[in-house]
Amino acid sequence: MQLSREPDVSDYLIAPDPKAPRLTRAVEGVDHTGALTTIRVVEERPLTIFLNAQEIVTAMTIGDYPEYLALGFLRNQGMLRDGEAITRVDYDEELETVVVRTERATDYEDKLKKKTRTSGCAVGTVFGDMMEGLENVRLPDTQLRSSWLYALSAQINRTPSLYLEAGAIHGTVLCHQDRPLVYMEDVGRHNAVDKIAGWMLSEKVGPGDKILYTTGRLTSEMVIKTAMMGIPVLASRSGFTAWGVEIAQQVGLTLIGRMRGQRFVCLSGEKRLIRDADPSQIADEPRRAGHKGAK
Amino acid sequence: MQLSREPDVSDYLIAPDPKAPRLTRAVEGVDHTGALTTIRVVEERPLTIFLNAQEIVTAMTIGDYPEYLALGFLRNQGMLRDGEAITRVDYDEELETVVVRTERATDYEDKLKKKTRTSGCAVGTVFGDMMEGLENVRLPDTQLRSSWLYALSAQINRTPSLYLEAGAIHGTVLCHQDRPLVYMEDVGRHNAVDKIAGWMLSEKVGPGDKILYTTGRLTSEMVIKTAMMGIPVLASRSGFTAWGVEIAQQVGLTLIGRMRGQRFVCLSGEKRLIRDADPSQIADEPRRAGHKGAK
Repeated sequence: MQLSREPDVSDYLIAPDPKAPRLTRAVEGVDHTGALTTIRVVEERPLTIFLNAQEIVTAMTIGDYPEYLALGFLRNQGMLRDGEAITRVDYDEELETVVVRTERATDYEDKLKKKTRTSGCAVGTVFGDMMEGLENVRLPDTQLRSSWLYALSAQINRTPSLYLEAGAIHGTVLCHQDRPLVYMEDVGRHNAVDKIAGWMLSEKVGPGDKILYTTGRLTSEMVIKTAMMGIPVLASRSGFTAWGVEIAQQVGLTLIGRMRGQRFVCLSGEKRLIRDADPSQIADEPRRAGHKGAK
Repeated sequence: MQLSREPDVSDYLIAPDPKAPRLTRAVEGVDHTGALTTIRVVEERPLTIFLNAQEIVTAMTIGDYPEYLALGFLRNQGMLRDGEAITRVDYDEELETVVVRTERATDYEDKLKKKTRTSGCAVGTVFGDMMEGLENVRLPDTQLRSSWLYALSAQINRTPSLYLEAGAIHGTVLCHQDRPLVYMEDVGRHNAVDKIAGWMLSEKVGPGDKILYTTGRLTSEMVIKTAMMGIPVLASRSGFTAWGVEIAQQVGLTLIGRMRGQRFVCLSGEKRLIRDADPSQIADEPRRAGHKGAK
C-alpha cells in the first residue's frame, strides 16, 4: 500500500469518512506488555428494514447511508423490481429503522420463509432462491484495461478508510475505468455492496460500464450480487472460491483476484481483459508467506 | 508465520486436511503476464440441515464434517437443548442433507420467522433473538497464560491448512492451554465454529477450560457464539468490532485481538490474563502498513 503518498479522494463521489465520530469508538484495553492502550474499533448497529408494512430483516451495520443500505438490500434481494416506483424512504435514527415505500403492494411472507446461508464474508441472509433470475443476466462485452486495474488498486489502497483507521471492516468500491466513484465500507461486505446498489438505484447510475472492487473474497454470493447488479467485472485483492468462479464463468462475468502490486489472476471472462500496461513497470508488493487474502 | 519450521500436527485431535481432493479444485486462469496458470480454490457446497421433519437451513460449506456442522449449528442456535437426547444423525452425500433426530418433538416454525443478519464474516442466519440466553451465561474464572497465546499462535500459523493451500477460507481452533485440539476450516467462519461445537457435543468435551482461536474478526456474533458455547476466551490475529467488545465485557469473556508475533491487545476479561512470558523473547511480525487484519 502506498500510504506514504498523499491520499487523493478528490475523484470520489462518495469516499470513506474514517474520522466520522459515529462510525468508530475508542476502547481502552491492555497490550502485550501490560500497558494501557486505547484503540478505535468500528461500530455495529442494528438497522431494521421494512418494505411498506412488512418487516424484512435486521442488519448489523456501521450505520452510515441507511437509506442506500435498505434500497440496495431490497433491490439485490429482488424485492424491488426494475423501475419499481419508490414513493418514500424514511430513516428513523432513534428507532433504528428504514421504511421503503412503493406504489405497488408487496408481500414477501413466502419469500421470507426460504433462507440460504451463504459463505462467510458473504451476505447474511438470502431470501428466495439465490440463483433466481441469474439465468436472465446478460452482461455487456465491455473492455477491461489492465492499466485501470493497476490505477484502481493504487488509489483505493491509499484512500483513507475505516479499514486503515480501525480495521475489521470490509470495503467495496464502484469504479468506472480507472476512477473509483463510490467507496462504501461496512462490518459486513454484503452491506457495503448493498449500499452501492442503493446509491446506483437512487442516482439512476447504469452498471454496464462499471467495475466492482472488493477487499474481500470472491465468493459465490459476491459474484451473484455483482451479476444481478449488471456489473460485468468484479476484482479483489483476495482469493476465490470454486462456486464463485463457476457462477462467474456461467454468467460471463470477468473475475479478477489476488490483485497485489503487479500481480493478479483472471479466472473468468478473460475476453474483456486488454493488457495495455507493462506489469514490470508496476511496483510489486512483497508476497506474504502463505497469505492468500482470506480473513 | 513460521512456515520454514517443520509443521507439527501430531498434537491435534482434528487437523486440517489441505490435500483432501474433495475440498479444493484446480481452476485454470490467466495471470497478469497473460500466462496460463492453475490455482487451487476451495469448494463450496450446499448442505441442507433438518431437525427431525423440519427443514432448518441450507448452509454453503466446504463439505467436511457435515454431521458436526449440523449438530453444532442446531446447538448454537439453541435448537438443541442441554442434554438433548439425539437419537440419530444421518448425512446423505447425494442429497446434500443432514437430518438430526431427537427424542423430543421439536418445531421451530416460529423461530424461523425471525431473522437477524449479522456482521460480515459472522453467521449467515441467526434465528430468534441473537442475545437470547446470553444473560444466563456464566463463564468460569480460568487462567490464561500469555505463554499459551504465543505457543498457540506459533503452532496454528505453521499448521498446514486449506488457508495456506488455497486461501479464501476461515479457520477456528479449539485449544486447551498451549495445545490446539481441533482445527476446523470453512468458507464461512460460522461453519468452522459450528463444526467445533458439533464435535464438542458429540465427544462430550467441556468448554470451561478451553480457548477458541479464530483467524477472523472478533465480531459480536463470534463473541456471542463463543460465550453461548461456554468458552471463556476468544483470541484472534484480527481486529475488533465495538459490539463484539461490548458483549464480551458484559458476559466477562476474555477477548484477545491483533495477535501477531509478540503483540496482542486484550479488550475484555483481562482478569484471566497471566503474563508468564517475556514478549521481548518472542519473534515479532513486521507490522504491515495499515493492515489491521480485516478481509
